[in-house]
Amino acid sequence: MKKVLIANRGEIAVRIIRACHELGIETVSVYSEADKDSLHRKLATESYCIGPKLSKDSYLDMISIITIAQNTNCDAIHPGYGFLAENVDFAEMCDASNLIFIGPHYKTIALMGVKDVAKDTMQKANVPTVPGSDGVVKSLDDAKKISEEIGYPVIIKASYGGGGKGIRVARNEKELIQNYKLTEQEAESAFGNKDLYIEKYISNFRHIEIQVLGDYHGNVVHLGERDCTVQRRMQKLVEEAKSPIISEEVREEMGQAAVRAAKFIDYVNAGTIEFIYDLDEETYYFMEMNTRIQVEHPVTEMITGIDLVKMQIKIAMREEIPFTQEDIEFNGHAFEFRINAENPYKNFMPSAGKITKFKEPGGFGVRLETACYQGYTIPPYYDSMIAKLIVYGKDRDDALQIARRALDEFIVEGINTTIPFHQKIINNEAFINNDYNTNMLENHDIMSE
Amino acid sequence: MKKVLIANRGEIAVRIIRACHELGIETVSVYSEADKDSLHRKLATESYCIGPKLSKDSYLDMISIITIAQNTNCDAIHPGYGFLAENVDFAEMCDASNLIFIGPHYKTIALMGVKDVAKDTMQKANVPTVPGSDGVVKSLDDAKKISEEIGYPVIIKASYGGGGKGIRVARNEKELIQNYKLTEQEAESAFGNKDLYIEKYISNFRHIEIQVLGDYHGNVVHLGERDCTVQRRMQKLVEEAKSPIISEEVREEMGQAAVRAAKFIDYVNAGTIEFIYDLDEETYYFMEMNTRIQVEHPVTEMITGIDLVKMQIKIAMREEIPFTQEDIEFNGHAFEFRINAENPYKNFMPSAGKITKFKEPGGFGVRLETACYQGYTIPPYYDSMIAKLIVYGKDRDDALQIARRALDEFIVEGINTTIPFHQKIINNEAFINNDYNTNMLENHDIMSE
Repeated sequence: MKKVLIANRGEIAVRIIRACHELGIETVSVYSEADKDSLHRKLATESYCIGPKLSKDSYLDMISIITIAQNTNCDAIHPGYGFLAENVDFAEMCDASNLIFIGPHYKTIALMGVKDVAKDTMQKANVPTVPGSDGVVKSLDDAKKISEEIGYPVIIKASYGGGGKGIRVARNEKELIQNYKLTEQEAESAFGNKDLYIEKYISNFRHIEIQVLGDYHGNVVHLGERDCTVQRRMQKLVEEAKSPIISEEVREEMGQAAVRAAKFIDYVNAGTIEFIYDLDEETYYFMEMNTRIQVEHPVTEMITGIDLVKMQIKIAMREEIPFTQEDIEFNGHAFEFRINAENPYKNFMPSAGKITKFKEPGGFGVRLETACYQGYTIPPYYDSMIAKLIVYGKDRDDALQIARRALDEFIVEGINTTIPFHQKIINNEAFINNDYNTNMLENHDIMSE
Repeated sequence: MKKVLIANRGEIAVRIIRACHELGIETVSVYSEADKDSLHRKLATESYCIGPKLSKDSYLDMISIITIAQNTNCDAIHPGYGFLAENVDFAEMCDASNLIFIGPHYKTIALMGVKDVAKDTMQKANVPTVPGSDGVVKSLDDAKKISEEIGYPVIIKASYGGGGKGIRVARNEKELIQNYKLTEQEAESAFGNKDLYIEKYISNFRHIEIQVLGDYHGNVVHLGERDCTVQRRMQKLVEEAKSPIISEEVREEMGQAAVRAAKFIDYVNAGTIEFIYDLDEETYYFMEMNTRIQVEHPVTEMITGIDLVKMQIKIAMREEIPFTQEDIEFNGHAFEFRINAENPYKNFMPSAGKITKFKEPGGFGVRLETACYQGYTIPPYYDSMIAKLIVYGKDRDDALQIARRALDEFIVEGINTTIPFHQKIINNEAFINNDYNTNMLENHDIMSE
């Protein structure tokens, strides 16, 4: 592999460029007209404008991206996360164009992309799943029957849903009748498919996910878990590894379940099995699988010392994973804070504009992933995440101390950011004491505390 | 310990402020009139102007510093490196003023500060030293006799010397006669004491030093070695850990020798035993001891995971070292590159002025220590080092790859820096292949290669 096109922007594009360059691989970046000053354009070996500002005309333009990859003699395309990362058509198109798609096979992406099919597959792989309908529910009557069987509250989910859409809770039959129809309508309009399935609603849980790696030689390993319980409207905000809530026994079990799942579907490249960890029952259920690199991958890198993006590239080059499960050690504790260009005092209103001052935190235990710099203007057209602050310490307390001073040091002027929000989070008693679930931000008004 | 005054400036002051804040300790910084915009002023809890631009009127003004520490109710003073860090009077003055000096006892500083006394002490501790005079030489005749005994070339050193001054080589008796007098004159004018001693001159060597920690409870451990062989005019430029030249056996032996040395002098706090590693004989000799934190301490932190500055503070608080020698593990490989505001194309001419652009490298394996930022003006009155780039990888090759891309990413405009010099170094074949000694830069004109 001599040259890779990065079909993404912002921090993850920069992350991938860095990994490629460290491996001696040249990079081609693509950018929209709104991103001409972006660092991902500047750091790549070559860069090409891919279209106008809107994603659909640029970062989602599959034909243009593949054409540029071909014209610049790229061997492979790394999709990052978001945009085309889990687009089955794009992965298939790469394949058909003799370009290595740095990720799993498009059939795997398709399999895990339909939620009820993914769930069904995991049941077959003997991975615990949330009690619910056996696949898609056939009718409202069917839904009523199943809900009575598993007991209220239940959750209605669109098979093709995602990003917090096409999902509703029903606490009783009356709500089920109401929400079944609403979810069906939303599913049809948002995803072009009205298939729904039903699950027992678990409200008191932590979001815990297992990183896996599989290669073309049949090897599958897991790299431990990440705890991503601090969420706002189902968007992760703070992630950590290891999870401070699970026992060593559960950790071991979940890791084995994730490996079993990945092996069952012949998974190749980096992937993540997301689990619900039920705090009442102290047990875990498969939630979904992400068939790509995730935003929060750095916390795993910090505690394992393994560069996941380099591993993705090496696996795509058909190299064997150079370590076994027994070789992987988990040392220390890491946090990631997603710094968004939003005003946490005004209900997280997006805040684009020019960064007039940008003083990065540094020193021992601090890692920053960003495509921003002083003088850069954040365009309003894309995701609001502008940086990831990752801290690493010898244990959770140590990492929290480092986080505290690094957040204090991080100066961004000209726009609003979520830095003050993270400062509140890490000084919140429930967070410090590890006494919270995914409803933490609904239960606490962090910004007014 | 609730409040610490940092009697230093620049990156090491920032480094110490970070460690204090992570430990929940408040900080007081002092700054000269030329440093009012420095980050070490801005990051501290409180800061006070200590005098005019010249060091002698500010950072070396012991009375003012101690007065500020007392007036602000500080419990301790951290001297950093340079300035007052190895000043016996200052450490004694702290003691007399009931201020904890974060470092060893002033008597230890005094003992190791006189080079021939330090050497004599190490001999008693059964640490190998370079063959030479038994302490100070009494006369030129004495010098001649000793030089004949140990054989030419020899090196003439001022007992109170340091910083590359008061040191001369003699290849024969004629040169000895000449240089003896010159060194004596220089020693008298520079250090106020003309005492000299003589050693066998070893020219083909690596500079390898061992980090030690001692506490008030009699515990002494070593944290492995640093290889600081890449030097220009006896100033270190690149450091790494572990050293790629010594065997596991020698590593073990040198570590034990360093612990023996520290124990012999009841050493407390962080210190470094510097050794000459003779490449021809494959053996090591005591060179000198630095009784302070060193510029290059981060490479040790990276491979051990131990925060040395926090350890200094905890030891000064009379805490016991919380690990044993057996607990200390060395993982991976780290480099430090000293980025100086100098023009490497013009014989390293200093280059002060305004930093118009400052884009820091980031990502996995990259650590930056600096007090600079975009828009900051570097004053011409102090040391030219403006940043330390530290990289960490799973082995030397991996760390070199990360170094390469991090140096490529590091953009500093408005002033000249030694970044291009480091880019040359890490692509130099002798450096890559680990085939060099302390004369590397004399033997190669890196900047024209």
